[in-house]
Amino acid sequence: MEKETLGIRSKLWIVSDKEAFLGDGRIALLQTIKKTGSISKAAIDMNMSYLKAWKLIDSMNKVSDKPMVIRTSGGKGGGGSTLTESGENAIKLYRDLNIKCQKFLNTELKKLLKKL
Amino acid sequence: MEKETLGIRSKLWIVSDKEAFLGDGRIALLQTIKKTGSISKAAIDMNMSYLKAWKLIDSMNKVSDKPMVIRTSGGKGGGGSTLTESGENAIKLYRDLNIKCQKFLNTELKKLLKKL
Repeated sequence: MEKETLGIRSKLWIVSDKEAFLGDGRIALLQTIKKTGSISKAAIDMNMSYLKAWKLIDSMNKVSDKPMVIRTSGGKGGGGSTLTESGENAIKLYRDLNIKCQKFLNTELKKLLKKL
Repeated sequence: MEKETLGIRSKLWIVSDKEAFLGDGRIALLQTIKKTGSISKAAIDMNMSYLKAWKLIDSMNKVSDKPMVIRTSGGKGGGGSTLTESGENAIKLYRDLNIKCQKFLNTELKKLLKKL
């Protein structure tokens, strides 16, 4: 085994009672809402229907005791949507988990390959 | 956040120079070859073409310096395929990585949720 060329990748999901709660796609949606300030613009950006985006947000909001995305009302430019602190924390938590997991896996892979 | 209901799942891949080397599907194929003693029976069991199964094995054998699956020749019952020690080690390494990763993620998730 050419061990020095081997690497490891992971994909993580946080689940609530076995249903999806946070994963790559949902985090990307939160990040895009943050960037665009709107669920509909985020949906277009991510090439999904508004209904699909809305359902994903609704599902996350229901698991979290504080909603992750809220509507911002009106003004001249009309309303939009914005991340709450809870939404920002979810992004951070998921990113931290992924970074920690990657570091852990790099170390473990090296250890296990030594035994081969 | 109803933190006590949250759990975490992961999917791992070992890659070689950014190409797939070992993941859930390839490990399942190795396990099925071990069980059935044949690449063609394993392919049927896993609902994939023989060619697809053969290509996956060939790809793994090329990354590993020792092949993971070898043909066993003849006798009355004709030939079949069997896992080498390298193939057995790959299954064990992947299982160990997944178990360790799951334990790590459970602990990290708890820690991170406390900060929310």
